[in-house]
Parts: sequence; structure tokens; C-alpha cells
Amino acid sequence: MSPTDPARTLATQLPDTPPGARITLMGHVHRRRELATVSFLILRDRTGLAQIVFRPEQLPTVGLPGEETVVRIEGTATANAHAPGGIEVTAPEITLLSEPARTPVVELWRPTLDAALPTVLDHAAVTWRHPAQRAKWELAAASLRGFRRTLDAEGFTEIQTPKLVDSVTESGANVFPVDYFGTTAYLAQSPQFFKQQLVGVFERVYETGPVFRAEPHDTVRHLAEYVSLDAELGFIRDHRDVLALLHRVLLGMIESIRTESGDAVARLGLALPAIPDEIPVIHFQDALRRVGAPDDEPDLAPAHERALGEWARQRYGSDVIAVEGYPMRKRPFYTHPQPDDPRWSNSFDLIFRGLELVTGGQRRHRYSDYVAAIEARGESPAAYASYLSAFAHGMPPHGGFAIGLERWVSRLIEASNIREVTLFPRDLHRLTP
Amino acid sequence: MSPTDPARTLATQLPDTPPGARITLMGHVHRRRELATVSFLILRDRTGLAQIVFRPEQLPTVGLPGEETVVRIEGTATANAHAPGGIEVTAPEITLLSEPARTPVVELWRPTLDAALPTVLDHAAVTWRHPAQRAKWELAAASLRGFRRTLDAEGFTEIQTPKLVDSVTESGANVFPVDYFGTTAYLAQSPQFFKQQLVGVFERVYETGPVFRAEPHDTVRHLAEYVSLDAELGFIRDHRDVLALLHRVLLGMIESIRTESGDAVARLGLALPAIPDEIPVIHFQDALRRVGAPDDEPDLAPAHERALGEWARQRYGSDVIAVEGYPMRKRPFYTHPQPDDPRWSNSFDLIFRGLELVTGGQRRHRYSDYVAAIEARGESPAAYASYLSAFAHGMPPHGGFAIGLERWVSRLIEASNIREVTLFPRDLHRLTP
Repeated sequence: MSPTDPARTLATQLPDTPPGARITLMGHVHRRRELATVSFLILRDRTGLAQIVFRPEQLPTVGLPGEETVVRIEGTATANAHAPGGIEVTAPEITLLSEPARTPVVELWRPTLDAALPTVLDHAAVTWRHPAQRAKWELAAASLRGFRRTLDAEGFTEIQTPKLVDSVTESGANVFPVDYFGTTAYLAQSPQFFKQQLVGVFERVYETGPVFRAEPHDTVRHLAEYVSLDAELGFIRDHRDVLALLHRVLLGMIESIRTESGDAVARLGLALPAIPDEIPVIHFQDALRRVGAPDDEPDLAPAHERALGEWARQRYGSDVIAVEGYPMRKRPFYTHPQPDDPRWSNSFDLIFRGLELVTGGQRRHRYSDYVAAIEARGESPAAYASYLSAFAHGMPPHGGFAIGLERWVSRLIEASNIREVTLFPRDLHRLTP
Repeated sequence: MSPTDPARTLATQLPDTPPGARITLMGHVHRRRELATVSFLILRDRTGLAQIVFRPEQLPTVGLPGEETVVRIEGTATANAHAPGGIEVTAPEITLLSEPARTPVVELWRPTLDAALPTVLDHAAVTWRHPAQRAKWELAAASLRGFRRTLDAEGFTEIQTPKLVDSVTESGANVFPVDYFGTTAYLAQSPQFFKQQLVGVFERVYETGPVFRAEPHDTVRHLAEYVSLDAELGFIRDHRDVLALLHRVLLGMIESIRTESGDAVARLGLALPAIPDEIPVIHFQDALRRVGAPDDEPDLAPAHERALGEWARQRYGSDVIAVEGYPMRKRPFYTHPQPDDPRWSNSFDLIFRGLELVTGGQRRHRYSDYVAAIEARGESPAAYASYLSAFAHGMPPHGGFAIGLERWVSRLIEASNIREVTLFPRDLHRLTP
């Protein structure tokens, strides 16, 4: 049966099938129920569920196949107001395509996946088959499409940059060393240096790919490997232009979820985020005051982020709020200072439902500013030679941001642990499955 | 100047600008020419080139800015049949946004990038700015879009799978070890095991992302890190369904290049590949005979692939040919055997212009077949426990393929070295820039 063979009917096509038509379905047995007078088999394919009805004389002599058996079913589309979509399949002939060797550790046909998180993660290949679990990744896939579509429409060029690098980008710690042909390489903590260099080439770039953080803490919101949605663009005025782009990107991601993953949204009973016409912005100093933190705090604690998220919800009816002007001393050297007061930066964090989701801002663009900033940290510009060569040859004012995909989906469904939305999470204790 | 500020005019918008309009352009100085009676500045932005004309009295007192200076220019759109697109900019006022600190190692304004490959690679941040160089990556970006768009339209789900794995997928050698929180992890050589497991969930999946091969040889067609375009789908009859999908995907990639990167195609003087309505297929045994190789050769040598490519071109007018039925003993254990003769496999390589571009085929789908195949290699199924759990719980007949992105673009432009089309190549000798 070819993937485009019109002879195959998908579960979601069933309601549009004329009653009486002889059709072929393929998928996993989601549920079997054998009763005295009639038996049912619920078939699961990539689009949804279909109900197959067996009269006693139509049952295979060995009985109905068990859950997770892969089958092809030929049968007759039959109207039944009680069936999902109003059409069920009767007079079925069943062919087994592959039979399970084990019983799943969870009952996939139950409405909710009733298992502890370690069980769900340990048996990922099976637990992701649960429709409600699977819906979580469908949100991620739709978000990726929305991210790229928004940026494609604005003249961005997709890039793919190396994950093997010769030095450390963001911070000296939290990096994975790799044995690279006898020397040491590192796994990239972000595409930051590459995407900036490529702004000099393509002016507007984005990348969707893995980044690696040797995060030594075991928290519900960190992973050792995650998917970073990076964008960077030239010829901005300041970080507010970057924030405006982020706003359009978030709306594009939500629109993609709404229009292309409506079924996943329904399965999860999801309320899509409220993003107002303009993202509320608060300066870091004001944010400290608002949450009652001392004036000299260098960063916002998780409790502060939650309080700001709550305030944005109440004050602006918004699920997002941007905090701008983080202290320069806590930001990486490429961060552009606030022109009127260089203690603060032209950078921001976006807090989504009380958790930092995005870091972004304007970057420095003048070569001499980079040399001075690196020397001020007691480092040698020579250690950054290939990165700095982009700036030595003229770079536009630019900035960008990075969204953590798993964090986005996690807050979207208000998961208690980011691992719930990650296909195969990697952390301090987990390198498998 | 906001990125969406209508006040900014892009180079490609200039021909549509009404003569006499006062406009603002931004970009790099691509070329300056100061003559006695008139001076020119060619501006380069993300869309193309624009010509700015200075009368002597309009020149800045310090003269025109040098190449690679980043500028904003306000001027008057003026018809001139000799200017690119028929419109040039006169009466300019120029603002310097950032000045280069060094002279580029290559002259970017020359029609071709006239430098040895090591120079081009060592100075990637600058050499990619050359319009003809940049066009190569634009083909890659368009190919990524075409790949995803084709599969999105066929009901595929995008996946993002871990690059950090606990064991070796494809072969014991050629793998990079990673110091992972005190234990050893490896960089994934392919998403093979994950994409198969996820066929059990989403039925049709694809991934675009980095893969890693500790390739100990220094060749013109291998990289230590490259971008793999992976697809995998369930409910196939055999590998011919996979090849048919690959055919549609290649056509989609070419269509995307043709319609969205027409300017890059023109800059490179590129002849798009000839892909016939059906991809020619030859069995491995027949391929050996045709190239005059002994019957017991286990694989095709590069010279054989070139000869087959030449033959496909002459016989079928095709830039591609598929070789099916590779010997089972040379294929990975998950390869599905040819049902009528298990010495051969239901797998294929696609040869594109004389070089292997794609490996694909049908995979085994029965748990017992996997256990037998792994034991036949003298290995323990327990070492593959999490992978095998997908098959223990029922998997549809399935298959897939992987396209090397850089190899595709490399053969597309008939580059002599794959590094010419890779943004920042990684190999035995190169970990920077």
C-alpha cells in the first residue's frame, strides 16, 4: 500500500466517506472490546481513531488482535450516530501486519496517561503513542513551523551552524568536552557567535537546532540538550526592534498551533496564550521594585519572575512580559549597553507565564567596542579572533533572541516538568532511551 | 530604523521606486569608485546591489567610505538606463553606521571570489559575503524549505531527537566520545534509531539536523559534522515506496530552489538537475555487471558510481539513478532483506551526478527479526533494549532515507570540494572558524 495510495482511508477521512463504500484502514489496535453480541476494535492511525464493528460470526477464529497490533482492515463505511464522526466500519476483514511481543507498561487506550514521569520517560517509544502525550509534541512541531514561516516571510535566511566548536561561547562552565581527533572540542552552548557573523552576510538569519548545557543541577526546567530557536537581524535601532520581531514570531507560532494542531489543542484542553497587541515592557530596576527585591540584585529569582508574570496577567491581561535593561555586569560581553546609562543593557528577558522563556537584545557591533569589552574582562581578544573578524570588517547594528522550544511547550501546557514535553530528554541522570 | 519600517528601501525594490522619490537604503559598501567628474558607490544589502551617484560637490569631505563600511544612504531615485534595474540613487546623504578596522583578505566586489579554498575557509565570516559565495548557501536554505514543505504536505511530523546518545548507532568506529557528567556519551551518527521509534508514534516523521562522523580520512566529500535530512514513514509496501517519496522530495527541493532562489541560481549560472518522471532503478548485481566489476564486490567504488551516473545521464537523461538490492552483509542490521532472496536487501543508494547522495530503504519491523539479526552479528539484543522496545510493541512496515545537505548542494553546483558549500566546515584538521 503506497503512502499516497488513494485506496487507504485515514481515520479523519472516515466522516467524509460515503456510507456503503468499501475502504481500507491501517494502524495500531488502540483498544479491543469483545462482548457477547458484538465486538469493537478501535484503530489508531496518524490522524485519529476509527471504530470497527465485528458481529460474532465475523470475528477471527483466534479472536481480535490485542492492543498495539498493527493491522490492515478492509470494511464497509456505515453510518452510526454513536460512532466518532458518525461513521464506523462494518463487515471487516483484518490482516495482521505486525504483532506485539510484550504488553505495554501503560494502557494507551485510557483517556489519560496514568503513570509516574520516570515510567513515561523510560518507555518513551511506547508512551509517546498515547494521544494526549503525542499532542504535546504536535504543539512543538507546529511551533517550529510557525517560527520558520514568520521569519521566512520577513526575508530571513535559515542557517545551520556547527555544534562542534573550539572554545566556549557563553560561559566557561557547563560545557561538554568532546574528544575530537585527539584534541578537545566543545559542544556549542548556542549558535550566538555564528549567527552574529552571518548577519554580516545575510542580514537576517535564523536557526532551529540543538544546543548543549552541562547543567549540573537537577531541576524541572533545565535539560542538558534542548532545541533553541534562534533569530538575529541587522539594521535595528535597538533591542525594542528585536522585541517587536519576537512578538510577531510568538504570534506566528500560536497561529500555527491554532490552525494546524487544532486537534492536539482540543485533546489537551489547551487555552492558547494571551499575547496583547504590544508586549508589556518593564525596566529591570522597576521590576526589582515591583517584586520588592533590593535595588542591587543582579538578576531576577524564579519567584520574582512568577510575581511579574502574575502582575502582567492582572495588569495587562498578558501571558508575557518583557524585562529590559538587565545589568551589564550580568550579561555576556557582546551585549549592547543602554546608551544613556551604560550600567544597564539593551537586552531583555521575556517572561512567559512566570518563567523566563527568551533572552534577547541588541549586540555590540563596533570592533573597538568588542576589543574593549573583552579586555575589560581580563581576556585576550586573540582568543576570539575568528568571531571578531566579522566586526573588523564592518557589521550593522544588530540583535536577536533565542527561544527554548521545550520550555515554550512546557509553559504552554503548564507542565510541571520540562521532561514531559521532550521526546527523549537528556539530563544529569538520563542519557537513555 | 525598524526592520519593517516602510521607510527603508531594499536594493531589489529600487526598480519599482518612482523616479524622484526620496528613499533610504542601508547596507555594506560593496565598491567605491571615485572619478574626476563623478563618483559611484555600490551598496550591498540582503537582496542585492544598488548604485549611488555622487557629484563632486556631494562627496563627504573625508571622501567616500571604503568597502565593507556599513552605511545608511538617503537619496533620490533617478532613472538611468545604464544603472542596474534602471534606477540609481542621486543627491545622496550618507551616514556611517560602522566602519571596518581591516581590509578584507579578498576583494568582495570582484565578480568571482578569487582565492584558494583554505583562505576562503579561514576567513568565512568575510568570504561568505561575496554574492556568488553566498548564493551557495541560499541553495541550501531553499532546499531545506523544499524538503520540509513537501513532507508537511504529506502529513509528516517534524521531530528533534537527541544528539547525545549512550551507544553507537551505525558502526563502532567513527564516533566522537563526549565527557557526559563523568560518564561517556557519543555524538549521534544519525537519528536512525529515534526516527524509527517515532514512526510507531507519528507514522511519518522527518528531521533536519546535525550528525557527526569521526571520519578519519581527509577527502573532498566527507565532513566530521554535516546536516542530515532524514525522513521515515510507516505502512509502505517496500523500499520502492520510499524511493517514490524521495523522488517527490527531490522535486520539491528543486522547485523551492527554482522559485525562491532564482537570483542565486542566476548568480551561479546553475543548470538545475534533470529528474525524470520516474527515477531509473538498477539492481546492485546489474550495476556491478554494467561497470565491469566482479560479481562478488560488496559495494560500489566511487569510480563505479561515476560510471553509473554517466550511464544514467546518457541512457535516461537523468541526473539521478537508484541502485537497489545492496548485499545484506554490507548493510546495517535493521535493513529489510529482499523477500525473494535474502542475500540482497530492500535498500537503495541514490547516485546524484555520479556520487552517492542518499541511502534509504525498507527496515525490518518485526521484533523477532531484530533479535535474530542482532544475535547473528554476535551481539546481545539487551544492548539495544530501548530501541527494540518500539518493535516489541508493534511497528508497521516502514522505511526511510537520509540526504546529506552539503553533499546535495555540492553536487548541485558541481563543487570540487564539499567544504566550498559548508558555512563553517568541520573535519580532521579544521575546528575553526
